[in-house]
Amino acid sequence: MAALHDTLGRELGNLLERGRDRQLRLAVTGLSQAGKTAFLTSLVNQLRHAGVEARLDLLPAARDGRLLGARRLNQPDLGVPRFPYDPAMQALRDTPPRWPDPTRGISELRLELRYRPARSGWLRGAASHLTLDLFDYPGEWLLDLPLLDQDYYQWCQTRPFDQGEQRREVFAEWLAAAEALDPAAEADEAVLAELAEAYAQGLRRAKQLGFSQLQPGRFLLPGELEGAPVLQFFPLPHLSKPREELEALPDSSVYATLATRFRYYQKQVVQPFYREHFRRFDRQIVLVDVLGALNAGPERFEDLSRALGELMQSFSYGKRSLLRRLFTPRIDRLAIAATKADHVTPDQHDNLVTLLNSLLKEPLKDLRFADVPVKALSLAAIRTTWPREVNQGKTRLPALRGTTLEGEDVLVYPGDVPAALPDAAFWQRQGFDFPRFRPMPEVSGALPHIRMDAAIDWLIGDKLT
Amino acid sequence: MAALHDTLGRELGNLLERGRDRQLRLAVTGLSQAGKTAFLTSLVNQLRHAGVEARLDLLPAARDGRLLGARRLNQPDLGVPRFPYDPAMQALRDTPPRWPDPTRGISELRLELRYRPARSGWLRGAASHLTLDLFDYPGEWLLDLPLLDQDYYQWCQTRPFDQGEQRREVFAEWLAAAEALDPAAEADEAVLAELAEAYAQGLRRAKQLGFSQLQPGRFLLPGELEGAPVLQFFPLPHLSKPREELEALPDSSVYATLATRFRYYQKQVVQPFYREHFRRFDRQIVLVDVLGALNAGPERFEDLSRALGELMQSFSYGKRSLLRRLFTPRIDRLAIAATKADHVTPDQHDNLVTLLNSLLKEPLKDLRFADVPVKALSLAAIRTTWPREVNQGKTRLPALRGTTLEGEDVLVYPGDVPAALPDAAFWQRQGFDFPRFRPMPEVSGALPHIRMDAAIDWLIGDKLT
Repeated sequence: MAALHDTLGRELGNLLERGRDRQLRLAVTGLSQAGKTAFLTSLVNQLRHAGVEARLDLLPAARDGRLLGARRLNQPDLGVPRFPYDPAMQALRDTPPRWPDPTRGISELRLELRYRPARSGWLRGAASHLTLDLFDYPGEWLLDLPLLDQDYYQWCQTRPFDQGEQRREVFAEWLAAAEALDPAAEADEAVLAELAEAYAQGLRRAKQLGFSQLQPGRFLLPGELEGAPVLQFFPLPHLSKPREELEALPDSSVYATLATRFRYYQKQVVQPFYREHFRRFDRQIVLVDVLGALNAGPERFEDLSRALGELMQSFSYGKRSLLRRLFTPRIDRLAIAATKADHVTPDQHDNLVTLLNSLLKEPLKDLRFADVPVKALSLAAIRTTWPREVNQGKTRLPALRGTTLEGEDVLVYPGDVPAALPDAAFWQRQGFDFPRFRPMPEVSGALPHIRMDAAIDWLIGDKLT
Repeated sequence: MAALHDTLGRELGNLLERGRDRQLRLAVTGLSQAGKTAFLTSLVNQLRHAGVEARLDLLPAARDGRLLGARRLNQPDLGVPRFPYDPAMQALRDTPPRWPDPTRGISELRLELRYRPARSGWLRGAASHLTLDLFDYPGEWLLDLPLLDQDYYQWCQTRPFDQGEQRREVFAEWLAAAEALDPAAEADEAVLAELAEAYAQGLRRAKQLGFSQLQPGRFLLPGELEGAPVLQFFPLPHLSKPREELEALPDSSVYATLATRFRYYQKQVVQPFYREHFRRFDRQIVLVDVLGALNAGPERFEDLSRALGELMQSFSYGKRSLLRRLFTPRIDRLAIAATKADHVTPDQHDNLVTLLNSLLKEPLKDLRFADVPVKALSLAAIRTTWPREVNQGKTRLPALRGTTLEGEDVLVYPGDVPAALPDAAFWQRQGFDFPRFRPMPEVSGALPHIRMDAAIDWLIGDKLT
């Protein structure tokens, strides 16, 4: 822990800045492959080039020439890794351009924006500044929030390994071994470690297959807890005895040992993230790879839908919510974005937003009920394709030109995005298929994008007026 | 932090156990390559086989048949990685046998020893038990202790990059860049990050070359702090201005930024290890690769000597010591062992201990003054050679038979160990050279060793009477 003195000093400074509306903590998250690193890289890039090269017509402060620029400042949190903006830009400027390495865990970057306020009057002309703290963190960490509302017994009942056929396959080997384990037996640390590793292996394989709902999230990025008992638990798949009987088992039993580790995970791993980071974010954007899930088929699409439902619980902190009971979060604005919009033709972008809205229907209801302003949009943080038209007989069809990861220039029509949650007929047609594109070589200083300006406007535009 | 309730409950249980002399926390440390993993693996192995296969004649409880065995229990600290005993044994039992992977950071393993007390009387025959918590942690962490006694200005004056020719070479590139940096200039985060990376690179190369005195120690194993500003500082090599002037520089200056990070490192990285782990160890053993340093030449031998002097400060906590000011450590017994004794012929083992004693002369004085019982010995945790004799003319010379890492069976005479600190004449003769051996294939259940029993007796023997 920082010395109290330092912490107080920093907090006070932060409070003063925020009191004058001159500081904003903005967090970017998303499930794996959603494009967090690309988004944050592009965000920094657009703001740094806002005065000159960047095309930000949907951001009034930039369009009107009032956004004067952005410079990097030293970040306030010395224990949080810096967001690797320079290495990311280097990758994008390589020949051929490469996607930046994904970040792991949380990272941070501080910008100072200079702008001229829109209001005329005696202050007109004087430049103001906004300190923007940017964070990125894995959305998987939010999937652990529901764990805080359960005890070990309840978690076992949710059977997280048992949703869908592909997922069951991935966990089959672990399941057979775990079923043979007697909850009342004396816990053997080596056996539990082995089974926990098999469970973690199942999570890793599920992730490779494109599944999103993966609990406990830290099993995928253990960091310094690698090999520690806190990450060596798993659900017991067949609890035939009543809860009271299980909870009366001695401390050294399998059940009690796993339950203790589950509690430790709640308190030492899940809660600290919310306490030390989440509750301090003012605004957040959640990135969703809707198109990737459409590509991957019905089981993974449903999985994404469930995962988003759980993830969004972190944001719908109504009066009776779990988070509200832990502490008071203060997010006052939220964006949810379907990324990689450049992977479908422009005529499909509306459908993409509609689909995202359907996918998030229930969580959005809760958010609106909790009076958290939220906006859904589609974007491409770093644009990789250009729209074209091709003649087919007498009709002209929209298409995309881009370069695949393997370096092949292609002209494709990736398919229609359904405007509502896809039904069996959609999956039977299998009408949707897009290749992965690589970034385009740099032409101007600013990265090409689709609707990054709309996202920026929603997230910080009101602070630049 | 664990909930207070859990912590108190655990601490109370621990206290009760220790009150009855039935619990002991024993830590193993040593600078890189000293053989921590081999030692801890062998220690667990010997205790587990104490009743049967292990040869432990120097441990009275084992020799007299009173040590009945050891079993593994669940470790109490859920957030500390388990010591990977099984993978280590697997490596040693491979065909051909391999050395186990080195551990990183701290790890832990709990054993329960069962023994019959030596005292006769009405309790005779009843078995007692001792709970033994074993830890291993990098000795490099202890090299950071002296940092707690310095401020940033003082640390810069120590010029840790400037000791010896080879070391200067390693840091030359960094030094040139750092010298060009104006302490009063506005800090540029990217420039500081780059220079810090160059400094860390210097530390890594020095480590590869066999240097031991490497500060700050966490730069070598950053873990989750990789890329965080707390690990992005370095000494400023030429502070020509007086201290007062430097300390009056604004917060955003290079000097103030680096000094802030240095303080954060002291408080958030160095102190927590002492507070959360070190002060809770009852006994420790420090492993030293004296032979490796003899092999590597005078500059690295002197470096080892300096590093040991700094490392031992953690143990000599007299009334006015730095640690005593932070909290009360409670180590009541210390062992210092020259490892890899099987790499020299048995007639040299006495010299090895004498040399170790000379190397540690000053620290040992402090320890004796502070009334910390300490024993120096030589050992091989996992024996890799057998002594042989070879005829040379009419004399019989001692030699060693072993298998090199490359798999070649060799018969070697590695040279004489000097009984005192080696002088220029010794280094000129370059009389010392040993190959690295690989472990022997298993014959019985217990690992072959040299004087592990003497080490075990000193570290826990008195608890088994």
